[in-house]
Parts: sequence; structure tokens; C-alpha cells
Amino acid sequence: MKLISFQHNNGQDSYGAVLGDRVVDLREVFGTRAPDLKALIAAGLLGEAAAALSSARATLALAELRLLPVIPNPGKIVCVGLNYGDHVRETGREITEKPTLFLRVAESQLAHGEDIVLPPESSRLDYEGEIAVVIGQGGRRIAEADAWAHIAGYACYNDGSIRDWQTATPQWTAGKNFWRTGGFGPWMVTRDEIRDDQVMTLVTRLNGEEMQRTTTDKLIHSIPRQIAHISAFTPLSPGDVIVTGTPGGVGAKRNPPVWMKPGDIVEIEVDAIGVLRNGIRAE
Amino acid sequence: MKLISFQHNNGQDSYGAVLGDRVVDLREVFGTRAPDLKALIAAGLLGEAAAALSSARATLALAELRLLPVIPNPGKIVCVGLNYGDHVRETGREITEKPTLFLRVAESQLAHGEDIVLPPESSRLDYEGEIAVVIGQGGRRIAEADAWAHIAGYACYNDGSIRDWQTATPQWTAGKNFWRTGGFGPWMVTRDEIRDDQVMTLVTRLNGEEMQRTTTDKLIHSIPRQIAHISAFTPLSPGDVIVTGTPGGVGAKRNPPVWMKPGDIVEIEVDAIGVLRNGIRAE
Repeated sequence: MKLISFQHNNGQDSYGAVLGDRVVDLREVFGTRAPDLKALIAAGLLGEAAAALSSARATLALAELRLLPVIPNPGKIVCVGLNYGDHVRETGREITEKPTLFLRVAESQLAHGEDIVLPPESSRLDYEGEIAVVIGQGGRRIAEADAWAHIAGYACYNDGSIRDWQTATPQWTAGKNFWRTGGFGPWMVTRDEIRDDQVMTLVTRLNGEEMQRTTTDKLIHSIPRQIAHISAFTPLSPGDVIVTGTPGGVGAKRNPPVWMKPGDIVEIEVDAIGVLRNGIRAE
Repeated sequence: MKLISFQHNNGQDSYGAVLGDRVVDLREVFGTRAPDLKALIAAGLLGEAAAALSSARATLALAELRLLPVIPNPGKIVCVGLNYGDHVRETGREITEKPTLFLRVAESQLAHGEDIVLPPESSRLDYEGEIAVVIGQGGRRIAEADAWAHIAGYACYNDGSIRDWQTATPQWTAGKNFWRTGGFGPWMVTRDEIRDDQVMTLVTRLNGEEMQRTTTDKLIHSIPRQIAHISAFTPLSPGDVIVTGTPGGVGAKRNPPVWMKPGDIVEIEVDAIGVLRNGIRAE
């Protein structure tokens, strides 16, 4: 299934399943049993949702919906930095035995089709194409061997970064958390549609030009390793998001540097998922 | 007012106002209008809560309550690192123009009276005495001059850290987010009881021995400056928590280093607030 979160014209948040260019409103199906996509995952209802699609009517047109970030209200968003060798090299850093992690807050996210916001505080807005993992069944100290079973699905992520704020202090928090800089979409593809350990291809394009390209077999810390490491220190919960790392080719490390500016279009494409597309606008 | 979050014996979460050794159950007063302390703050009901105390009955004994972290469900917890000169010096780092920030997740918190958890993954559990600010009225790009008006109140915080995980990578996230390492309590003292810019004294004691002592006039980035800086990149919301920094004297930088171990008692005392006391237990 491809699952989206969206907002009705009347302002009511909902979520649904994408069938071609149509959408089944799953909030209508599940009501108070699962008022949002995170709740659906937490209640273990992904299978029931899939079964419901055969009899449910796809009443909505995908193109007319105002999408929300795939999970608009995650309990936590854990991002893995320095997780592809070519990106580690371009930053001049070294590979560490443990994954390098930082956190994003929910307010930093935006949906497919919305504009990433360039704030007046900076002109150094950069893209980072990534694959996001959405946690299904939660857990603490999940073994690597068991980790796949804790995944609900996958989405594209653009870990948009304000570079001068990111590097102004030893910790990257501010530059990674500007309001509406983290694209998350267009949908979550459920785990049953992507083979565990399937090699996915990740490409970032800026105004149609390819800027980043990698495959997930090049991850320094694999997805199961990330889940094991993160859950060693904190319980993972349904709907938690892990953003798994960006490859080389970020704008900041090009010569001359490339910064995203108002009017640009940035796309993150993952072959097994789809295309996350965002414009850029000045705040 | 001194406001606490707590759990009834039947497992129901609630919150209340402390009057001596008794507590008024404010969830009983406000019902669905404000089901938790964050909601009370968000609804702008602190004044109404204070007014209600004259007629409400303090039906509960403080000593018998199972406390929760002051705000059990904050939207975000933003911590300021390297914010007292003596601590910056002991870490061998340099003062930066912008505050150094990292985030904690809610699961890393625990209440006054509970035990901080030493995980089997490490023996390097350290204390960091701090003052937490709880946001009242939210906002974006709050001016320093307006910042005090956005504060709901203050609490003690122990930014408990697993040092080897904190320093294993360039980002401190893992070591700052172990489950139940961040003490937050015992209560929130509302802003009306602490003069804006009042110099508070902050002391950390381990098994009765003083380990850290400072006053808030020594903050490198003042509380209004922190609020202005953080809200420059992200909207602050009611119930958000800012943990304002620790002074020199952390265990990791002593010779020999001092690590907290099972059976220890750690106290964070702020003269204007009270004492946050936690034991240590092995997981």
C-alpha cells in the first residue's frame, strides 16, 4: 500500500491509501479506532487497511488533496548523519563505529508538493536526499536480526539544512530544524512491497539536474543496524521516523557551492517508493 | 504556584497545585478543558488555576503521589550546551556566538523521586544540574525584549548523560537520550513567583557532596537570548521545554572522573525553585 496523510478542504486531517490517481479515505473506514496514520500503525491495523481496500470506494482525487508530511505527528525523528562514504569524505570527517545521530522536530517537516521555506536568516539552504523508515511495532534493544519486522514502511525524505546555522556551533540542531525545511513524502510504501534488504536507488535532482545518486547497499550503518543502535538507548514507538542518511553531492560541498533559492524545484526519487517534489519559497 | 504532574494509584494521569504538603487536583477542576498541565498552559488557564486554589480542596498528600516529569509530553525539549564559562573551559571547547543546542526526547525524562537508570551499555553516567524553562505563550522570532512574557515557569533539570555514547560521534544525541536519564522536577514554579532576570543559584550534590554551583548571571547566553535564538528557527509552543545549560564540575571532567552508580543520590537545587532528587539504579 501507499499511505498518505492529508487535509480535507474543511481543515479536517485525515489519511488514506493511494490507488492510482484516487485515494481511499481510511479515517472514514476506521473512525475513532485510528484517527491518524500513526494511530493506524500503532493499532496494528495495516493488514486490516489493506483488506478494506477491496470493498472501499476511492472517493478522492489524489491531485486535489492537500498532503501532509507522511507522519505529521511522529513521537521522534532520528536522523543519521555521515552514513554514505562519499558524503563522509566530502565533509572531511571520519567514519565512526557508532552512527552519528541528530533529531528533528515535527515543525521542521513539510509535505510533498509544498514549498520548502528559505528563512530570511540565511541564504545557505541545502538539500539532502534520504530514505525515511517509519517504525511499525515499537521496541527497545531490538536485535539487528529482528529489525526488519519493526518497520511499517518507507518514504522519501529531504533533510533540508541551513548550513551556516548547522555549522555555527558543535551541534547541528538549529540548522537541521528550521521551520518547514524537511520534506517527507509523497507517501509511505508499506514494508510488504519492498523486500527486506532490497537495494534501493536514491537520486536527488535540483531543477531537473541530478545532484546525488546512491544505492542503499552503500550505507555505512545499514537500516537494521540503525534500528538496533537507536533502540539501544531509547524505546522506538509506532510512527517514529528514522532518516537514514544522505550520499555525497550536497550543495555545500560543491565548487562553487550550490544553494537552493526561491523558484527552484528539488526532487528526491527512490525507485521503490516514488518522487518527493518540493518548490522553494522565501519566507 | 507550584505545579506538578502526577499519576493516581489507578493509573490515571493528572496534574495539580502544591500547597505545603497537600495537592489540589487541577484535572478535577478543569476536566476536559485542560486534561494535562501542557493543555492548561496552552489554554491560558494558569491565572484561573491560581484563582481556583482559594476555594478548591487540597485532597491529596504530596508525599503519597507518584510524580511524573513536570511536563510529561512536551512537544520539544531543547537543551543548551556549553553555556557557562567554567563548563566550556573544562570541556576544552570555545565559546560560540550562537548557543549550542541539542534535543532530548520525552522518553529520556523521569520525575522527581524516581531513579535515574544506568543502562548496561555503559558505566559513564554523569549529572548536569540545570534550570528548565517551560514555555507559556508560543511564538516564532520572539524578540529578546519580549521573551520573559513567553515563560510559564521554571523547574530543576538533571541533564543526565552517558558520556561515552555522547562523545562517540560528532553529535551528542545518543548519550543525551538514554531512557530515563533526564530528571525534571520536582515542580514548575510559575513565572509570577520568580522576578524576570532574578539571579538564581544552582547547586548539584552527589550523595550530599556539592559538585556544581553557579548563578544564572553567569549564563553566556541568557534565558531571553535562548528564547530569541531558538524561536528564530522553530516555533515555540506552550509546554515546550528549554534546558538552559550546566556549569562546571561535571563528573567526566574531574580527576579522577566521577560516575554515578547504583545507590547514589543526586540532587539539583535551585534556590527559587526547590530540590530535584533522584536515586540511581542499574537497569
